[in-house]
Amino acid sequence: METKVKLLRYRTSPFSARVELALELKGVPYDCLDLEDVPDKNAVLLEYNPIYKKIPVLVHKGKYIAESLIILEYIEDAWGGYPLLPKDPCETAHARFLAHFIDDKCLPTFRKAIWGDGDMQKTTMKQSKEYLSILERELGGRRFFAGDEIGFLDIAAAYIALWTGVHQEVAGANLFTVEDHPILWKWCQEFLNSDVAKKILPEREKLVDFYSGKKEFIQAYVKQSG
Amino acid sequence: METKVKLLRYRTSPFSARVELALELKGVPYDCLDLEDVPDKNAVLLEYNPIYKKIPVLVHKGKYIAESLIILEYIEDAWGGYPLLPKDPCETAHARFLAHFIDDKCLPTFRKAIWGDGDMQKTTMKQSKEYLSILERELGGRRFFAGDEIGFLDIAAAYIALWTGVHQEVAGANLFTVEDHPILWKWCQEFLNSDVAKKILPEREKLVDFYSGKKEFIQAYVKQSG
Repeated sequence: METKVKLLRYRTSPFSARVELALELKGVPYDCLDLEDVPDKNAVLLEYNPIYKKIPVLVHKGKYIAESLIILEYIEDAWGGYPLLPKDPCETAHARFLAHFIDDKCLPTFRKAIWGDGDMQKTTMKQSKEYLSILERELGGRRFFAGDEIGFLDIAAAYIALWTGVHQEVAGANLFTVEDHPILWKWCQEFLNSDVAKKILPEREKLVDFYSGKKEFIQAYVKQSG
Repeated sequence: METKVKLLRYRTSPFSARVELALELKGVPYDCLDLEDVPDKNAVLLEYNPIYKKIPVLVHKGKYIAESLIILEYIEDAWGGYPLLPKDPCETAHARFLAHFIDDKCLPTFRKAIWGDGDMQKTTMKQSKEYLSILERELGGRRFFAGDEIGFLDIAAAYIALWTGVHQEVAGANLFTVEDHPILWKWCQEFLNSDVAKKILPEREKLVDFYSGKKEFIQAYVKQSG
């Protein structure tokens, strides 16, 4: 049984990046299996994550663990060292709540606000800005959501730090700005300038190129799926 | 600051029941605030859970904790005694994954299969039965998902043990049967016959009455929202 950690990922995925940020903070060495390089992606996904057929999947001690937030919890439970979650159970519950808020509410709404059009775009843009305000209020005067150091919620919010800006640049949308959300913007700069983010996150220009090539596809998809 | 645990709930809600099952297993005393009895429900929800405006909400040491699965994790973290999650991080990750599978995939699909009509009903019924088979395979030969004792995933699956049968009886649907899923059916009986379930879960007949009174409303809602 292979004991080295393996990550099934897309290089450009914010969900894969979450797992890598956590592994790097914990100092856990890992190999990547890049799905871009696999001829039969579906067969691989069916083997590693038969229920969701999605990346990321973490492979450890012969077991497959799927869903990025659950993988983060696993990394916290399985390895000591750098703490991803607060010691206080109530603060931990709050970080979990907001991480799920990012996935359940922010990301699908941001997608429509950035890539959609017409009334759908208008309504979701207003909603998305309110969601950013909720996150901004959560930061208070702290450097990171977790305090002085990067934690679970900062990692969950990596999408907002990097991908939101890339998406809105490519789509020509105006969701997340320094004028509307200066405190969250400052968090974003602090996060992107951290050692772990600089080491792990994909280069901004590569992401811009990647999403520019998929712009029409994403816009048509969002328009169709609502 | 009030230190006694308070639960904001609906008496008929499977999500509230999850929290009560966990509190009971841990031996944590609590008071209930029943939202049915509150004249201005919206104001209460806005105060306790401003982002989702949903029950259940657990109040402990002046803090509000929302989302049933996150509350279960909080209960596990905040109180010792009866363990809800396995000791092995990998088994814990698997229990979390399947609990989220129940919420993200099973419940919305079951709702359409039970309360919907036409092609939507036909497609989701097939899918729902496949989801039940996934859960059935997870049980293997064990009494409960967690082994010999009730745990996190059994609690998360309480909806399937009680509410699914009630809903399909009221709607006249045929999703979960002893013929198609005998192993999961046996788990359902074991679970419903446990001391904690008998103490905490609402009476089946009361639920049948409750949902019978809402049948047309639910059917219209599911038809409209898809």
